[in-house]
Order: sequence, then structure tokens, then C-alpha cells
Amino acid sequence: MDEVMADAIAKQLELFNRDYRDNVGIEHLQGRKLRDLRPHLTKEISGYFDLPDFFRDLPVIENSIEVIRELSERYEIFIATAAMEVPYSFAAKYEWLQEHFTFIPPSNIVFCGNKSIIHADFLIDDHASNFVGFQGQGVLYTAAHNVFVTGYPRVNNWLEVREFFC
Amino acid sequence: MDEVMADAIAKQLELFNRDYRDNVGIEHLQGRKLRDLRPHLTKEISGYFDLPDFFRDLPVIENSIEVIRELSERYEIFIATAAMEVPYSFAAKYEWLQEHFTFIPPSNIVFCGNKSIIHADFLIDDHASNFVGFQGQGVLYTAAHNVFVTGYPRVNNWLEVREFFC
Repeated sequence: MDEVMADAIAKQLELFNRDYRDNVGIEHLQGRKLRDLRPHLTKEISGYFDLPDFFRDLPVIENSIEVIRELSERYEIFIATAAMEVPYSFAAKYEWLQEHFTFIPPSNIVFCGNKSIIHADFLIDDHASNFVGFQGQGVLYTAAHNVFVTGYPRVNNWLEVREFFC
Repeated sequence: MDEVMADAIAKQLELFNRDYRDNVGIEHLQGRKLRDLRPHLTKEISGYFDLPDFFRDLPVIENSIEVIRELSERYEIFIATAAMEVPYSFAAKYEWLQEHFTFIPPSNIVFCGNKSIIHADFLIDDHASNFVGFQGQGVLYTAAHNVFVTGYPRVNNWLEVREFFC
């Protein structure tokens, strides 16, 4: 979900810049995360994800709804999200999906930790670490933090996802 | 989780008998569910699962903690629960696991719907329907509702699970 369907970084930067009168932009996060840039505030930065409603109103990544809907006509789609890292996010993530991805049945939503437990042919993810132990084909979805990662097929946006699968 | 690690039926019967001055016992539920026995109250019966705290204080099924801890020394254990049927249960289920199964890391907890998404060698479950599409070996854990189900290896309690795997 995060950085693939939901723009968590946009909201994180907005809150961070407001709270610390900083001016970090996505252009400063190429190949790294906010906590790498401001290590003395690591605890505060990860604290945003513990706010119960942080995930409730994230912006939807461009074209994700349209392309996933289209793919769902040809493929069986599951949404797998590493929610166990942020247990207070469960309700907000579920409601966000119900609001924006109305065509995904709850039976096809998975809140997990280690994604090696996922049985699927493909996994579209922004973290290559999630491909470790995954038996299918990992597809790396470009996010600022992963721009220098190699070793996996890469898609830069949802139009490229459509092209990859159709 | 439910009927394998957590005794949801015990609590459901307790609440039902209290609210409807009934006297249903587990002995009346052999091969069927409470809603089959009292179909005119189906909505009220399933409503118990929507109470946010229903799952928080369920009794732990006998020997499950000890045997799962023992198995976790030889096997990689994931807890997969069909939580998407009862989205208000997320927090309570998570906290219940954190309380009783302290040795299971959050990364190995999976809240899902359709269990065909689970990639594992074995799935211990009280619902044979969860074995449909599952690529590993299903192991049916005896619960009142499934006593007449055949077609899968069956374990009647956690001591039998230990025997099956060790």
C-alpha cells in the first residue's frame, strides 16, 4: 500500500516540515529516507506512523485505482500491506481501502509482516527486502528511497504497471 | 486463531445464553453452528463478533501456547487469521496474541480473508473451506462444527498437533 497505492511520504513530509519548521522535499530523499536525513529525529519521524489516523487520509497514488481495477478483470488481485509494523494503523488502512478501492473485496486484503508468507505470482512493492523469501516475481515500484536499488524489474508508475502486465 | 488457539465459541455461547435466557451447550453444536440452531437470531449471533472487544479476552485453547512454543523451535510459525470478516477485531486480536503468544513476533502475524494467499507447508484450521486453494497440507483442527467433515488429516487437540509434527 504505502508508496505504491498510498502516498505516505507526502503526508509524512508535510507533518514533519510543519512540526520542525523544516523544508525537506521529496528531491532530498533520493535513495534515502527522512530518518537518514534527520537521524536525530528518528523517533519523532517514525512516531507519525503511530498516529491512529495517519493512514486514513493519505493521497492515492496517481492512476493506481484505474490500473488495479483494470488488472482485476484479468488477474486475481490481493492487497498485502506490512501493517504489523504499525499495529495502530489497522482500522485506518482498512477504511482507506474500502473508500478508494471499492472493487477489492475484504477477503483479498492481507495485513502482514514478513511478506514471504504471501503466495502469489507477482508482488509489486517499493521495498526489495520484501522480495526476500517471496516465491513469485518481485516487481519494484519506484519510490524516492529505492531509486538506486537494482536486481528487479522496475516500474516507475502505474501506467508502467499496466504495460508490464497487459 | 478462533477455535484453534482462542475459544470464541465458549464466549459466544455465554453471551447468547445470557442475552436470550437460553441454555445452548457445546454438545448441541456437533456438526453445526449456533446460527443453524437458532436461525431466527442469525443477525444477533453474528453481531457478537462485531463488538470491538469480543476477541480481546477469549480463553486460550488448552495446550496451544506450550505446543506452539515447542513447534516454533523447529518450525517457522505464522499465525494467520481470517480477520477481514470482522474488521473491528483487528486491534483486539493483535493484543490478544501479544498477551498470550509473546514468542510470536508481529512480523509472523497475518490478518487475511481468503487463506489461499498463504504460502506455507501446513495450515492448521477448523474450517476445511480454508484449505481450498491452499497449496500446502491442510490439517483439520477439531471443533464442534466440523466433527462430521472428512477428507483431511484431523487433530483433536494440541497434544495431537505435537504428535503430528514431532
